[in-house]
Amino acid sequence: MTGWLTQPHFVTLEGGEGAGKSTVLAALRDALQADGCDVVSTREPGGTPLAERIRSLLLDAGDEAVAPHAELLLMFAARAQHVQEIILPALQRGAWVICDRFTDSSYAYQGAARGMDVHFIAELERHAVGIEPGLTLLLDLDVAHARQRTRGRDLLGGASPDRIERERDEFFERVRAGFLTRAAQHPQRVHVLDASPEAAAVAAAARMRLADYRKALA
Amino acid sequence: MTGWLTQPHFVTLEGGEGAGKSTVLAALRDALQADGCDVVSTREPGGTPLAERIRSLLLDAGDEAVAPHAELLLMFAARAQHVQEIILPALQRGAWVICDRFTDSSYAYQGAARGMDVHFIAELERHAVGIEPGLTLLLDLDVAHARQRTRGRDLLGGASPDRIERERDEFFERVRAGFLTRAAQHPQRVHVLDASPEAAAVAAAARMRLADYRKALA
Repeated sequence: MTGWLTQPHFVTLEGGEGAGKSTVLAALRDALQADGCDVVSTREPGGTPLAERIRSLLLDAGDEAVAPHAELLLMFAARAQHVQEIILPALQRGAWVICDRFTDSSYAYQGAARGMDVHFIAELERHAVGIEPGLTLLLDLDVAHARQRTRGRDLLGGASPDRIERERDEFFERVRAGFLTRAAQHPQRVHVLDASPEAAAVAAAARMRLADYRKALA
Repeated sequence: MTGWLTQPHFVTLEGGEGAGKSTVLAALRDALQADGCDVVSTREPGGTPLAERIRSLLLDAGDEAVAPHAELLLMFAARAQHVQEIILPALQRGAWVICDRFTDSSYAYQGAARGMDVHFIAELERHAVGIEPGLTLLLDLDVAHARQRTRGRDLLGGASPDRIERERDEFFERVRAGFLTRAAQHPQRVHVLDASPEAAAVAAAARMRLADYRKALA
């Protein structure tokens, strides 16, 4: 892994389930493409065949209790693969990369919510990831509101909840606080967007943030 | 994970393919059982359903190049799961645990052979494993001899070589040197056995080592 590097054309979306990351991702991708940019949109955990196989281990471990360290290391194994195979090659050819979740999610879910040592997470990030996004949009939504949205999705015939989605509200409160802490620690990179308005309004706010960011880059 | 702890009833076997670890494992298990001990014999990577699924990702990644950090973290993810679900519960009820490969293999394969940072491997060991065996038997065999044995096995209708087995001799020379370095660094714990004699003789030498170790424990 080459040295630590902030990647200006690497944009990540963070936030809990139901915050509207998919809609925002599509809006940002379309905005960049309309401007003639080469764009790769991807997601974590996953993004390569091996990383997607790791994702399926994480979301469905059958009846076996997953050790917290196993979960954390699987997440970072998938991320290391994703960075090497997809994200870095795309950035190196000059493309923009928009990713649904990245390292901030590990700080929020495994660090803040599961209580794992954040210094160890930082070591994993430094060794196995080695890059950070230039811009991160955190779609912030209170837990009750997020539950309402994901429940609506389930009633509309979505997949049954996975291993993470079955956690209690208390867990998701800690996830949310973990994300907000990351935003407070990285105010230059992480921008908090209120995700409670309707999807189109959130997407419009995200597009404005990206436009401001690109102006500042130029 | 509770604090770092050497586990007196935890015995590991290390060495390359073809060194005879399976025969030795069976001999040690039989010797302990003949003495009325509760014994769990297991292997890495693997040992639980989730860890075995990780093993299959490691040994068959299809056409995808596996990032070195992804390989390393998958190994330690499987190990964290194995320790929490199988090894620690067995030790805590007073059983002996004999394991075919453990953390020394990561130092030899990912550290010495792939050139990954051993300080990072030590961090992974400290955080995600947290225990070390009381006794490790390193079955040492020169690479040409090991190749001869595994080739013989393949000709006898064994499975086709996996992703690791397809590496070049140079790689296995580094693995061997990595194991010998571990033995030199941990002379109290790691005992080197010459694995070139026939299997029954190596197994007899291993049984004697275990008997000496148990006398010293008592």
